Amino acid sequence: MFLRVPKASSVTRVMLRTYIDGEQALSETTVDRETEEDVRLRAQFRVENPVVNYRWLLDGVPNGYQWLNGEGFFDRDVTDASDFRISTYPAPPAWAADAVLYQIFPDRFAKSLDRPAPDWAIPQRWDDAVIGSGPETPFQYFGGDLDGITAHLDHIASTGANTLYLTPIFPARSNHRYDASTFDEVDPLLGGNEALERLSDAVHARGMRIMGDLTTNHSGAAHEWFQRAIADADSSEAGYFTFTDHPDEYVSWFGHRSLPKFDHRSQALRRALYEGPDSTVAKWVGPHGLDGWRIDVANMTARLGAIDLNHMVATTLRATMAEANPQSLLLAEHSNDASHDLLGDGWHGIMDYAGFSRPLWAWLKRPEAVRFEPGPVTPVPRFGGHSMVATMRAFNAAIPWRVRAHALTLVGSHDVARIATFLDGDGGLITVAFGMMASMPGIPMLWAGDEIGQEGVNGEDGRRPFPWHDTSGWDMERLAVTRSLFNARAASVALRHGGLRWLAVSDDAVTFVRESPVESVLVHAARAAHSPVRLGRAVVGPELTGLAGATDIHADRDGVVTLPANGPAFGMWRIR
Amino acid sequence: MFLRVPKASSVTRVMLRTYIDGEQALSETTVDRETEEDVRLRAQFRVENPVVNYRWLLDGVPNGYQWLNGEGFFDRDVTDASDFRISTYPAPPAWAADAVLYQIFPDRFAKSLDRPAPDWAIPQRWDDAVIGSGPETPFQYFGGDLDGITAHLDHIASTGANTLYLTPIFPARSNHRYDASTFDEVDPLLGGNEALERLSDAVHARGMRIMGDLTTNHSGAAHEWFQRAIADADSSEAGYFTFTDHPDEYVSWFGHRSLPKFDHRSQALRRALYEGPDSTVAKWVGPHGLDGWRIDVANMTARLGAIDLNHMVATTLRATMAEANPQSLLLAEHSNDASHDLLGDGWHGIMDYAGFSRPLWAWLKRPEAVRFEPGPVTPVPRFGGHSMVATMRAFNAAIPWRVRAHALTLVGSHDVARIATFLDGDGGLITVAFGMMASMPGIPMLWAGDEIGQEGVNGEDGRRPFPWHDTSGWDMERLAVTRSLFNARAASVALRHGGLRWLAVSDDAVTFVRESPVESVLVHAARAAHSPVRLGRAVVGPELTGLAGATDIHADRDGVVTLPANGPAFGMWRIR
Repeated sequence: MFLRVPKASSVTRVMLRTYIDGEQALSETTVDRETEEDVRLRAQFRVENPVVNYRWLLDGVPNGYQWLNGEGFFDRDVTDASDFRISTYPAPPAWAADAVLYQIFPDRFAKSLDRPAPDWAIPQRWDDAVIGSGPETPFQYFGGDLDGITAHLDHIASTGANTLYLTPIFPARSNHRYDASTFDEVDPLLGGNEALERLSDAVHARGMRIMGDLTTNHSGAAHEWFQRAIADADSSEAGYFTFTDHPDEYVSWFGHRSLPKFDHRSQALRRALYEGPDSTVAKWVGPHGLDGWRIDVANMTARLGAIDLNHMVATTLRATMAEANPQSLLLAEHSNDASHDLLGDGWHGIMDYAGFSRPLWAWLKRPEAVRFEPGPVTPVPRFGGHSMVATMRAFNAAIPWRVRAHALTLVGSHDVARIATFLDGDGGLITVAFGMMASMPGIPMLWAGDEIGQEGVNGEDGRRPFPWHDTSGWDMERLAVTRSLFNARAASVALRHGGLRWLAVSDDAVTFVRESPVESVLVHAARAAHSPVRLGRAVVGPELTGLAGATDIHADRDGVVTLPANGPAFGMWRIR
Repeated sequence: MFLRVPKASSVTRVMLRTYIDGEQALSETTVDRETEEDVRLRAQFRVENPVVNYRWLLDGVPNGYQWLNGEGFFDRDVTDASDFRISTYPAPPAWAADAVLYQIFPDRFAKSLDRPAPDWAIPQRWDDAVIGSGPETPFQYFGGDLDGITAHLDHIASTGANTLYLTPIFPARSNHRYDASTFDEVDPLLGGNEALERLSDAVHARGMRIMGDLTTNHSGAAHEWFQRAIADADSSEAGYFTFTDHPDEYVSWFGHRSLPKFDHRSQALRRALYEGPDSTVAKWVGPHGLDGWRIDVANMTARLGAIDLNHMVATTLRATMAEANPQSLLLAEHSNDASHDLLGDGWHGIMDYAGFSRPLWAWLKRPEAVRFEPGPVTPVPRFGGHSMVATMRAFNAAIPWRVRAHALTLVGSHDVARIATFLDGDGGLITVAFGMMASMPGIPMLWAGDEIGQEGVNGEDGRRPFPWHDTSGWDMERLAVTRSLFNARAASVALRHGGLRWLAVSDDAVTFVRESPVESVLVHAARAAHSPVRLGRAVVGPELTGLAGATDIHADRDGVVTLPANGPAFGMWRIR
């Protein structure tokens, strides 16, 4: 464990505080090495428990006592909530840290051929308008399919994305397919199992990956398991669900009768869904299938009243995947503080709405924009850079770094307003949003269509068919910026694997550095014009090499570098 | 759920945020009633899970978005760490909220007769000096016993305490007896089982209670279980402990070979120690025995490497006690952030070093006092009232109010420096410390001897024999103040059961109010002279009735009350 202490500070002594078997332990530090500017202190301690909290205690600071934890400095005692955390559980697969996800809603991405619409559907032509809110919303059927995706891998790869993430592909009775009627085959409307195999093989042939989407909280009411469950109260499947009055009354997701909630106390359910090699989870993970799962409504899975088997589900699911394919990745949907579920033994990562998207949206939100509320529940406020950074630090402090490094950094998804709409088409701000996604720790997730400036006032409205046949509406600058940003990320080990250090934060601009042993990249993001940020020799060398189109910067005679003060603007520079 | 909003605020709308089965839920509020000064809002929601987090979302505030949680107001998203918490588990016994504990270290409190010293002991006369640190420290034997305690119940009751808490009373090979050699009988050196029965009956005859102290983390190496364990690797008892190389190498508390650590994976251990009516825990709880247990090293119990059965131990122990005596109380030793162990289903409360003692010590600490470090591990800093209050709020925000209300508020114990020594004999500051203990939420714990001003530079040094035969060294003013403060608490339902609201905080003074439906008490504590605190009609009526010797205060013509500005000083006034 290392701590870098600026020589200019008044710190006289540093100790490391950890825990052993529930009791705190303080360890002394020793000098590991010194540079002109700072001292690197080293602390050694035995990691006795699977997850260990730690923080630093500084002496000699002005008030003689200061804790340093994941949120910063405190001159009083603090709870363990924001301690740094080491998780000793097995790491996620190595490819994941280099992943950039491309999220596809299969009904709307691309169509390889015309198929008859199913009975539940309202057939649409590709150019028809999406109805964002109304009784037709889940039933508008555009007919996108998996071979359509396969046909557009060039485009996807060109964005810099290297991992497809498909929302559900099992048969269902809606266009979103979160109400699966079976987990045993890919929806024939999407081309069936063979189309998935073709897509998977094509993806893998390019060295890319593909993730699926599974509902562990519920199935559709049309699911074969649920149908057997209601037909026979004595069936094994009847135990998969929670009937309060068989067959009419049962627990469902937020009371939606089309989405009966699973009861994970049933061992038969666990075996069918995610426990062992014959389970759904295992079946689809493999060389001609998926490289991992995104788990829908993971935050509610196996939680009902006094029952909370969520941790068991996450760890069992992960064990099954590790067995079926040690290189598979497990991500969870979560919209709020997920720290209690993120010890590192279950979900590898989450959709980081709370620690990335919401604070970023709030910082970039236009003062006049009150009509779009992309948060799934609470409105998004508007605040300055300090609050954005404080929020990001608070939510991320509570989880191990390794989990944070595998959390999805997203600026949009199929569940929220399109970023172009949220930011009222302000290209500069949208570039800042994309830049933050490409430069911050985590796995970026690009929501298909955002790279060409698609719009949508809410999640459903944003699920617009991708206009392959008519590029006149494409935002070509957005596409170019997207490619440039993600290609820069792909070329930089610091951006993909580096640590994070905030250098300067003001209302309108934030500056941070991503540092790896071999490279450091400086990132500067501004939502508006601002007082220039100046960095001295202690932080940067005399030459900053622009990435993703940024202009090189040279230090002045005193070794001071001045960053661009315009805005909205985003820039990255290699500083070492 | 209610929220009081001052009419002077700009709040336009308030929502309650809770969780249901892992997903957040927002509820609207309605006006319950209005007073001249404020609006009482009511929110209704179904408590679906055993422990539910909640916080308030305010609209119309200057920045348009504000969360209110247990730590205060935040204009950005915050994690759930400081959400308010409702725990629906059964409540602690009703008497506990009215309890004031009196902690006794049996070897040092009072002696009823001379007994031959045991083989491990260094016999001492009652007047001999205690050696606070050295090889003799655990073996100095003064010979206090249970009948000695019984003889001094008048004194104990006179302090306002109503519940004895005895450190261990089982046979052992040290004066502290945390190294029990059996749990089956009371140490004959203390008078044996009959003496406990006499003490218990005398205590109960007065309407008082008595708590014991149990080591669930370890026993003594001389314990009959451990002796059987080392004698026979195939014995049931061998499974009670963790041998790494039987019989020589075993896991022990911090490597002290005299304290072998229990292995709670052993069902036989669980049954012997705390599971079911034949267990140690059940055996001693009852009408002629104990009214509850304080659990030693609770924070480390059943935690070892990848094993963490702590929650199981706490809930099983509590279930056993509830069965044996539904009126029994379960308290746990904990020195740091214990929130993860305090859902309300296990320990009823803890020793609140982290959320009460340490912040209070830090506030009262004399600037020149660097030589005494009462913290068990980390030093105690010195800081102002804001940091004290922020620390108290942070640690208490993370636990249900009901747990906080049953946490021990202590200013000293057998493990830390005596408060009189820590505060260098400054009577004014010591009164402030006692006043805070008597007035804040929680169960006060008076460490025997503190009420007469006993000294001690560390825990062991403070374990001085109580000088019954020579009152010349007693601090009679301290005793009078102690009685006055705790009698005032006993007479005030607000001080015992009320809520807590901070009114004014500065470096040198803090003001808060304890509020119950029928009474409110204003508390003002100052470590030094300070600018006077003035309170308007919105807070207090025209007459403040002094408690515990405080002078009545009358409002001026404008209805403003001015609190005393001297210090160190402590005062309480009934305001309603």
